[in-house]
Amino acid sequence: MPPTMTAFERSPDGGRGLARDMRVRWALEEVGQPYDVRLLSFEAMKAPAHLALHPFGQIPTYEDGDLALFESGAIVLHIAERHAGLLPDDAKARARAITWMFAALTTVEPPIVEREMARILERDEAWYDQRLPRLEDGVRKRLGELSAFLGEADWLDGAFSAGDLLMVTVLLRLKGSGLLEDYPNLSAYLARGETRPAYKRAFDAQLAVFTAASRQSSSTAVNSP
Amino acid sequence: MPPTMTAFERSPDGGRGLARDMRVRWALEEVGQPYDVRLLSFEAMKAPAHLALHPFGQIPTYEDGDLALFESGAIVLHIAERHAGLLPDDAKARARAITWMFAALTTVEPPIVEREMARILERDEAWYDQRLPRLEDGVRKRLGELSAFLGEADWLDGAFSAGDLLMVTVLLRLKGSGLLEDYPNLSAYLARGETRPAYKRAFDAQLAVFTAASRQSSSTAVNSP
Repeated sequence: MPPTMTAFERSPDGGRGLARDMRVRWALEEVGQPYDVRLLSFEAMKAPAHLALHPFGQIPTYEDGDLALFESGAIVLHIAERHAGLLPDDAKARARAITWMFAALTTVEPPIVEREMARILERDEAWYDQRLPRLEDGVRKRLGELSAFLGEADWLDGAFSAGDLLMVTVLLRLKGSGLLEDYPNLSAYLARGETRPAYKRAFDAQLAVFTAASRQSSSTAVNSP
Repeated sequence: MPPTMTAFERSPDGGRGLARDMRVRWALEEVGQPYDVRLLSFEAMKAPAHLALHPFGQIPTYEDGDLALFESGAIVLHIAERHAGLLPDDAKARARAITWMFAALTTVEPPIVEREMARILERDEAWYDQRLPRLEDGVRKRLGELSAFLGEADWLDGAFSAGDLLMVTVLLRLKGSGLLEDYPNLSAYLARGETRPAYKRAFDAQLAVFTAASRQSSSTAVNSP
């Protein structure tokens, strides 16, 4: 039996590939591992059956036989350790690729998510116009440092790795924000990730879920009295 | 030659063990690996020599021969993979321990750091009294979920692991906040971490750095005209 991951029944991002199941889908596509997906409503995510798999009530989870994992970073690392293609063979290069996995999720992503959350939750607050520029400065600081490090390289450390996979999914959150455009090498890096065939397969798969859910709910709406 | 890590010459936390070198020190103490520490001023952290080791200009870094790493989570994982004592031998238990490493740093720590940063940077803003309770609710949400998962267990998944090590250092940030006290099992969990001999050695070592720096700057002050 292939491993099973969980994903949103109807992703709040509208199928833009920002939900964290995208990372796991992409990793599995890169290594050529088939997988099943179990879709969850927001209600099901907070129900005891799911909390037994994921103590924080989120997606994705990953089940393979009697192994159950959560946290997209940990799942990607688990996949990368068991299949060729996402971590270098050389022990030192491997440790550096894992360093970039942590850097993506713990240094670059937090200010990006903080800005996003302010845009969603604080847009109508009196302080919004004053706070937003500070949050964007925090994002720019990290982007500037990342851009300086990447320079003219294609990927963060030699060949494409799980570190790049996570970093690309983090930068993807900035699409349409106007923030990435000041760093042409990061825009090119993001585009390089998005054109990988495995990325495209993963993206299309998550979009198909959202499209099907939208079609279903619009047909339900039509059929409702 | 033992590995060399970097740490603050004078930690902004006043020696409370909240700087991220504490995690690396603790991991090295748990596995019994001697290490050297190179102390950095805030100026040195932003200088080219350090940026070559750490693209985001932070501490800690970790150098072992010609291997150079950054990101406390990645360094702790590297140490845990090379020495017994921080990850279970069983492959599934090992994957679950790594899941908890990511959970500590990417799910539990961000709302805690966000609250801390607001307390430091926004205390004088008109909106502070309105935002703080929301930030504290975000912290409580994670603490409640973590507390429910931990229950009466000593550690997150069987024996003490690198996942517990990181989670304890994350919860340590809440000492004195009054937030942890609502979750007696988490308070006990934190205390259980702090009483480990390896934790104490690591804590004392980082405190000694801060104490020496304070003594030196006060003697400088006394000797200044």
